[in-house]
Amino acid sequence: MNRCSCALVVVGNEILSGKIPDSNAYFAARELRSAGVALERIAVIPDDLDVIAAEVRECAARFDFVVTSGGVGPTHDDLTMEGVARAFGRKVIVSDELAALINEHSSGKPNPARLKMAEIPEGAVLNQSEEIWFPTIQVENVYVLPGVPQLFETKLRMIARRYRTDPYFIRTIYTTASESAIAAYLNDCLAQYPELMLGSYPKFDDAEYRVKLTLESKDRGYLDRAFDHLIGLLPREAVLRTE
Amino acid sequence: MNRCSCALVVVGNEILSGKIPDSNAYFAARELRSAGVALERIAVIPDDLDVIAAEVRECAARFDFVVTSGGVGPTHDDLTMEGVARAFGRKVIVSDELAALINEHSSGKPNPARLKMAEIPEGAVLNQSEEIWFPTIQVENVYVLPGVPQLFETKLRMIARRYRTDPYFIRTIYTTASESAIAAYLNDCLAQYPELMLGSYPKFDDAEYRVKLTLESKDRGYLDRAFDHLIGLLPREAVLRTE
Repeated sequence: MNRCSCALVVVGNEILSGKIPDSNAYFAARELRSAGVALERIAVIPDDLDVIAAEVRECAARFDFVVTSGGVGPTHDDLTMEGVARAFGRKVIVSDELAALINEHSSGKPNPARLKMAEIPEGAVLNQSEEIWFPTIQVENVYVLPGVPQLFETKLRMIARRYRTDPYFIRTIYTTASESAIAAYLNDCLAQYPELMLGSYPKFDDAEYRVKLTLESKDRGYLDRAFDHLIGLLPREAVLRTE
Repeated sequence: MNRCSCALVVVGNEILSGKIPDSNAYFAARELRSAGVALERIAVIPDDLDVIAAEVRECAARFDFVVTSGGVGPTHDDLTMEGVARAFGRKVIVSDELAALINEHSSGKPNPARLKMAEIPEGAVLNQSEEIWFPTIQVENVYVLPGVPQLFETKLRMIARRYRTDPYFIRTIYTTASESAIAAYLNDCLAQYPELMLGSYPKFDDAEYRVKLTLESKDRGYLDRAFDHLIGLLPREAVLRTE
């Protein structure tokens, strides 16, 4: 089964200071998962050049690809392009191709701030698409996305399509037992099926079930065998329903 | 003015895989901000011992304090206590004090899984409070909080009270100009007031304003002078309203 890993780097003081809730991370998590991609890290960091560069450098080395969200735009606090350039030891240059595109899609006279939107890391790839005229900037395995949710989501979908790989299969068990009561069965199941991704999620404010168990694998046969094994261990009266 | 910095480490495969949205980060961001604390990093990481240990170690060294969310409980995927212990090169031990508390508040017979809840890093501090009988485990400058939002929120409020410091003051300007049109004024303002925290947030789906500007400082006089300076620069017809 093919594996593909990813990190999301969210750049924005407005999120760290609680001014707005981030919605891009949750969107990306779901979209990447359904594309079979393992999102292994989300980092929310400030509009700080050194911090952006360090985080992007580390994630680019550790994961198959990296997506950044936010910090692109024409003002002083839009530092992601420069941060990504610094992560790879590249200069920031004005892209003539991008400058032409921006002028084509803008009204009013060109100004220095607008020109800043055409500044990208040297050697960056401009990924064009039909949905949005502004291309997705790519440097090595890093994709620089805007933070505005509508734009982020459209571009993230394109990237998820590009990296789509073997899917995850999931089965779910809802139980009325407590985590403490079933922990030993979960350990037994993992001893037999060490490659299983097994999650145990207690719910405290729901009268229907107490613990939701999720079993996941990219190998459907393996998943089904692990599921049958665990169901065989759990007290029958503790299993409310399965999916 | 006193500064205090913090990082939040959210541990949980269920968030990275998009099964549930995290709400603890947004809650913590607002609560810490209103306590005058600078949240400078949010990391969402998997239920992986080495990853937890590395992230906690790095954050504990860089920030005044660290809060973790999730990964505490009696099952196989609850690895935060062990991860925090490893971050500081400590052993995990069974706390007799915590074991007694757990037995006091539990029904049914003690079992190995329940005993796991009494395992904490050696030398950890048990912070008692009136609101929740389960103490908040503290190792050096790291606080280990449960991921369940009701519990996380109550405990986070206690920590925010403990670290409360000089507040942030904020003023807001709503403008009908584009970011490109006002970028130069923002740069001018920052050149004069380099300590100002100045945010520029375009809105694309709102007919009322195009850009929201936030000005922040822990020094109210400095903030007011920077605000007056920027208002003096902006074209009068571009300022919709201020707060």
